[in-house]
Amino acid sequence: MWRLYQFPLCPFSRKLRLLLAEKGVPFELVRENPWEMRDEFFLMNPTGRTPAMREPDKNITLSDSRAIAEYFEETVPKNPMINGTASNRAEIRRLVALFDENFFGDVTGPLLMERYTKRVVTRQAPNSQVLRSAMRLADDHLDYIDYLIDHRPWLAGSTMTLADLTAAAQISVADYLGGINWQGHEQARGWYSVFKSRPSFQPLLADRMEGVAPPKHYADVNA
Amino acid sequence: MWRLYQFPLCPFSRKLRLLLAEKGVPFELVRENPWEMRDEFFLMNPTGRTPAMREPDKNITLSDSRAIAEYFEETVPKNPMINGTASNRAEIRRLVALFDENFFGDVTGPLLMERYTKRVVTRQAPNSQVLRSAMRLADDHLDYIDYLIDHRPWLAGSTMTLADLTAAAQISVADYLGGINWQGHEQARGWYSVFKSRPSFQPLLADRMEGVAPPKHYADVNA
Repeated sequence: MWRLYQFPLCPFSRKLRLLLAEKGVPFELVRENPWEMRDEFFLMNPTGRTPAMREPDKNITLSDSRAIAEYFEETVPKNPMINGTASNRAEIRRLVALFDENFFGDVTGPLLMERYTKRVVTRQAPNSQVLRSAMRLADDHLDYIDYLIDHRPWLAGSTMTLADLTAAAQISVADYLGGINWQGHEQARGWYSVFKSRPSFQPLLADRMEGVAPPKHYADVNA
Repeated sequence: MWRLYQFPLCPFSRKLRLLLAEKGVPFELVRENPWEMRDEFFLMNPTGRTPAMREPDKNITLSDSRAIAEYFEETVPKNPMINGTASNRAEIRRLVALFDENFFGDVTGPLLMERYTKRVVTRQAPNSQVLRSAMRLADDHLDYIDYLIDHRPWLAGSTMTLADLTAAAQISVADYLGGINWQGHEQARGWYSVFKSRPSFQPLLADRMEGVAPPKHYADVNA
């Protein structure tokens, strides 16, 4: 069976957890804390970052969340998530990059540093200026989701794609860390609440990271 | 004709310049300085980052260098650059991510900040500690290329792929900015010198960024 090396609040691993569940690929979670810089993990994956995946019986090791997503898209036909014309596929991949790079860099990354790493790993006080900036930038990203959902049923077009899974994965971590204010974002909230009800999303909502509790609304599918 | 919005030392745009030349896709360069944050560019590409591409006659706009590379791989069969089995393709994409994210974050990004942006845009003194760290990390990355080339003719396997173009694009910018010390990296140097001789590479070697001159060996195909 495939093993997914991850930690509960890794947004890139969450994207793959959603993708594998939607495609019906069985997998088991293996806990990996990249900040511990385990030699064995670096040997498997030279960047030392989560996620990585391994199929011991087939002796296949994969790393980088976008490379892994493309691999399962190519090898598992069920529920295509990078589909349509070449232009459609470019639009899906553009949005995947936007959430993996910009949303993570602006919002999820700083929140993880201030509200998880500093609290649990390095035992420092959070920087409230960084937190305020992350929450303000989260608001800008939610505006962009509102705009997309005003024009399309799903982020990249008429069907659910890897763009939606990527955005939902990033937002779920930011929401867990108290960084999302849904007020004034009815379209984004409606789009996200559809996800929260999907079977693929339930393991993510049930997962907890030691040392940090999510706000009450986080796992409430009606919130 | 396709228009590529870029600036001469953007490593992600250089990757596409190599890819388009290898695939024989005609394109024209349009100068875009992302630090000027032009409204028209943000309208075309909400992340405001280079590269973006546009085909006015077909009314197609693309952004994100990996999404754009996949688009041309799917639409132009000549010289496939993400080829082979699903595992081969995952290996190519893993290395593309490693150079676009890790090499850029460790080496090219800091060099661009210290030796271009601070000199020409913000008029600050460079931070020599950051420069030393970038050059030390460049050395680690060249060690990894040496290791790969010890085991394979090209970075991802038996043929030239997008992994090679991505690595060469990043290294060419780092080399322009004086951040690469080739000593002790015979395998990496041999691999890179093959690239420097390719027709697709000549426009990159001839390109100059105002305010910063490259070291002498930069454009010398025998260095």
